[in-house]
Amino acid sequence: MKLLADTINKIGDLDDQVRQEIRIHQSNLTKPPASLGILEDLAAQIGGITGRKFPEITKKAVVVMAGDHGVTAENVSAYPQEVTSQMVLNFINGGAAVNVLARHTGAEVVVVDVGVATPIDHRKVLSRKIRMGTANMAEGPAMSREEAVQALEVGISVADELITNGYQLLATGDMGIGNTTASSAIMAVFLGIPGHEVAGRGTGLDKSGVLHKEQIIDRAIAMNRPNPEDPIDVLAKVGGLEIGALAGLILGAAANRIPVVIDGFISSAAALVAGKIASQAAGYMIASHCSAETAHRKLLQYLKLKPVLELAMRLGEGTGAVLAFNLIEAALKINKEMATFESAGISQSI
Amino acid sequence: MKLLADTINKIGDLDDQVRQEIRIHQSNLTKPPASLGILEDLAAQIGGITGRKFPEITKKAVVVMAGDHGVTAENVSAYPQEVTSQMVLNFINGGAAVNVLARHTGAEVVVVDVGVATPIDHRKVLSRKIRMGTANMAEGPAMSREEAVQALEVGISVADELITNGYQLLATGDMGIGNTTASSAIMAVFLGIPGHEVAGRGTGLDKSGVLHKEQIIDRAIAMNRPNPEDPIDVLAKVGGLEIGALAGLILGAAANRIPVVIDGFISSAAALVAGKIASQAAGYMIASHCSAETAHRKLLQYLKLKPVLELAMRLGEGTGAVLAFNLIEAALKINKEMATFESAGISQSI
Repeated sequence: MKLLADTINKIGDLDDQVRQEIRIHQSNLTKPPASLGILEDLAAQIGGITGRKFPEITKKAVVVMAGDHGVTAENVSAYPQEVTSQMVLNFINGGAAVNVLARHTGAEVVVVDVGVATPIDHRKVLSRKIRMGTANMAEGPAMSREEAVQALEVGISVADELITNGYQLLATGDMGIGNTTASSAIMAVFLGIPGHEVAGRGTGLDKSGVLHKEQIIDRAIAMNRPNPEDPIDVLAKVGGLEIGALAGLILGAAANRIPVVIDGFISSAAALVAGKIASQAAGYMIASHCSAETAHRKLLQYLKLKPVLELAMRLGEGTGAVLAFNLIEAALKINKEMATFESAGISQSI
Repeated sequence: MKLLADTINKIGDLDDQVRQEIRIHQSNLTKPPASLGILEDLAAQIGGITGRKFPEITKKAVVVMAGDHGVTAENVSAYPQEVTSQMVLNFINGGAAVNVLARHTGAEVVVVDVGVATPIDHRKVLSRKIRMGTANMAEGPAMSREEAVQALEVGISVADELITNGYQLLATGDMGIGNTTASSAIMAVFLGIPGHEVAGRGTGLDKSGVLHKEQIIDRAIAMNRPNPEDPIDVLAKVGGLEIGALAGLILGAAANRIPVVIDGFISSAAALVAGKIASQAAGYMIASHCSAETAHRKLLQYLKLKPVLELAMRLGEGTGAVLAFNLIEAALKINKEMATFESAGISQSI
């Protein structure tokens, strides 16, 4: 609990002076004012986060938090629970989508076992298991309040370690069969809306599957009565271990003044939890893509995050976030490498 | 005219068998079916274009076609005409946004003078000048029909040369003060809609500037009466030299079975011309971003192109297209490098 409290206290405002300096510099570059849109916003935001006018990113990582969900007993997923641990092995062997995309963008994949339901013992997996998956939230709380805090602190400590080791840009990734159900439930509680407005196809449910999932979400919320004013209560009762760890990762990045790229729906639910715990963390978040999961666009709007990619992806793992790394680096290079009107001898606007 | 006719004849259908093979392969990769959305579509499309199941891209280029517009005499741009040639020098010196982004994504920038209003003599610029800028379309046709065909053939021959030299992926880029006015006019003619539905801020007009631009567009169309059934007539009367060359580049890429990435509003107007000249070219186009130029989203919808980037950019030069290169390469690597369910020992859906 101390690590969490200290981390929340440490999260400061963005550096407005550096942000202003970057905006002035951008107005001198050889292009119409603001014509590079979000690329310019990203450079200004990262300047404000890091306090540097021309930050460089040489080490970056996507952190894939893995955990299982007791609610899979209610048949809310198109895949069996065992796929979570099988996919962890796939991450280790470099065969998953996130591995391919991380290699492509020069990022490290860090895999953390926060609560996979089977034992995992592999030197390439950070073992931070809190319990063997959550309990079935349709029958009671997914985890205890203490476990929810532990999950948050796992994320914070992973962020702290990576940043100590020189990583300057982090992204969130998730693996956990059943975790769109938990994410939808979190969204439903905080936005005060029913299951049918938050449930989607997940990994591939059909229409009747989605209907059933909506009912399970409504039942879990009715049963547990999570308090939307108490984000740790929400996380404990209808959340997930990997979702808590991702929320912690976001808080940890913010406390260390490091930008953190938010992947898809699960990661956005974690961002929602993080923002409810510490609203000043919002300035450190960068949205990557808008996924095909039905409620994601609404959730991004609620978070006031503008996704830069529209790829109709719905895979998780950090796949969308890793793709956004390339755009973030492009934004920083634009800021650093473009000629100015003066240096290039170009006429300004009439 | 012979080069244009031969090129149109050469554009064939996409290879449906290869496309099917890729779809089957994708269904065996360790992810829920179709969960990588447009990344999967792109891999299938490029397979269909190239006829290869695992195409690799080692050489790629963005072609920046530069030309001036007589309609600038009507004060339709926030910048003076001289900026076109000044920016050509900026491209050569590597200081423009497209240079920074091309270096970032490992692409070559090819600059072509199709009709800049001042003499340009530099070994790094492909000199294919047809005339010193177009005439003022508010007073008569922008160019002759013969010049429009020449512009198309410049684009085709540049595509042919680059592809002969081993380039496997091309992107369109533009430079030409006044060219959003010409692009809007082209769109207005083909879609049968008035100036106020196609005109936008361009490089930075204010409200009254946009209103004036709408009127100039309407006047140019009323004066010249371009025939929407005759795309070369439209290009000649209300188009631009660089827009014609970009349409030709697209046709040339399609004829050589090479994918071509469409940049923003100007490039989409060129894609519109190319598609009207040869509808089968559409399958070879890949949309990059949806720009902040007002009418671009509508134009992309008309072209049935789905942009992958939402960056609120409005710069042209090929900046959005070059950013999409990275996503296209990601799509091809996903297709080639991901593990299958069988190879990774992962359970399929229930």
